Amino acid sequence: MSEGKTPEPTLVTWHQAEVQRARGAVLWFTGLSGSGKSTIANAVDQRLHQLERASFVLDGDNVRLGLNPSYERLLPDYGDDFARRFGLGFGVLDRQENVRRIGAVAELFCSAGLIAITAFISPFREDRDRVRRQIEANGAPGDFLEIYVQTPLEVCQARDPKGLYRQALRGEIKNFTGIDSPYEEPLNPEITLKTAEASVEDLAQQVVGYLKACGKT
Amino acid sequence: MSEGKTPEPTLVTWHQAEVQRARGAVLWFTGLSGSGKSTIANAVDQRLHQLERASFVLDGDNVRLGLNPSYERLLPDYGDDFARRFGLGFGVLDRQENVRRIGAVAELFCSAGLIAITAFISPFREDRDRVRRQIEANGAPGDFLEIYVQTPLEVCQARDPKGLYRQALRGEIKNFTGIDSPYEEPLNPEITLKTAEASVEDLAQQVVGYLKACGKT
Repeated sequence: MSEGKTPEPTLVTWHQAEVQRARGAVLWFTGLSGSGKSTIANAVDQRLHQLERASFVLDGDNVRLGLNPSYERLLPDYGDDFARRFGLGFGVLDRQENVRRIGAVAELFCSAGLIAITAFISPFREDRDRVRRQIEANGAPGDFLEIYVQTPLEVCQARDPKGLYRQALRGEIKNFTGIDSPYEEPLNPEITLKTAEASVEDLAQQVVGYLKACGKT
Repeated sequence: MSEGKTPEPTLVTWHQAEVQRARGAVLWFTGLSGSGKSTIANAVDQRLHQLERASFVLDGDNVRLGLNPSYERLLPDYGDDFARRFGLGFGVLDRQENVRRIGAVAELFCSAGLIAITAFISPFREDRDRVRRQIEANGAPGDFLEIYVQTPLEVCQARDPKGLYRQALRGEIKNFTGIDSPYEEPLNPEITLKTAEASVEDLAQQVVGYLKACGKT
């Protein structure tokens, strides 16, 4: 970069020296609120860590605070105009954008060679399929694994770990998946986890076994 | 997760089993268009890869296509309403949001233990400082390194690798940093790279040496 005779060729050479990494994968957990997505996702993350396979969980805790904040969260630092324009709520378009961005970040982690693990309800088939198409287009089929956490609605409601079903049934939360907004089951998920029939340990092992079988660990 | 006597404690136990990772760092390159940010960023990435230190470059190529797409890019898949609401242009608020999201993703990579390397003009001090505050708040001082790629404007203009300065001078691009939009130099960057005085190899080594000295490699 010093101003010698041929700065441009030097630049070009270095651009060609970009690191070539083996792609990781995206484990896209989907299921009702309270179905066990985060619990199993974290158990898978733990197993992969023990296997020294780099991975990372994207979930509500780290995404709604940073990547996809609400109006209220943006307001103090960015002001009203900005927060109105970019704050994410729970309307139809907002939810699409929420899933789209999570997919884009999962894709970046996959490009970096990690196993990206997402744990969001992501109730709509079209949204999930769009993420799949994008990730497969940048990589290959097999990079995106849809994992359906199949827990009956009545079990999720009885469990209700955050009290959200109770609030939704009282009408205090609108458009709540399973109550007054639909959940579209995956048609051809790579993995279905029947949570009523196995322990968390076994379910996590089922996912890790699948990854091993396709050479992703 | 099977319906036994004490499903809740099992969930809690598994939530506590979240992987504790050492944080990585964020190398935030800033400088004029054509200053050499991407070139040096990729050289640093390459060195870290050789040292077997996990890292990843976020730059225009992988961010404008996925995480932060324009109206035009969103339109075919998402339709007009969605693309109007969420497509990012080059207005003041759009640029703020662009930097904000990149900062949030860099933070996620840092949480995952990687060295996240960003290479964007990011001309405004306030935007960079906000990212610094967020990353340090979630981690510690030292997690965010501002790296000023100090190349004189006339050198960048003479180099003009993408022909952008020529377009801006003809008025075909508006709000172009250094032409009709300001670049605010960092006041206290952790590292300043004087590109007129050293080779790309030496500059990359300067960054990696700094990381070694603070125990980040």
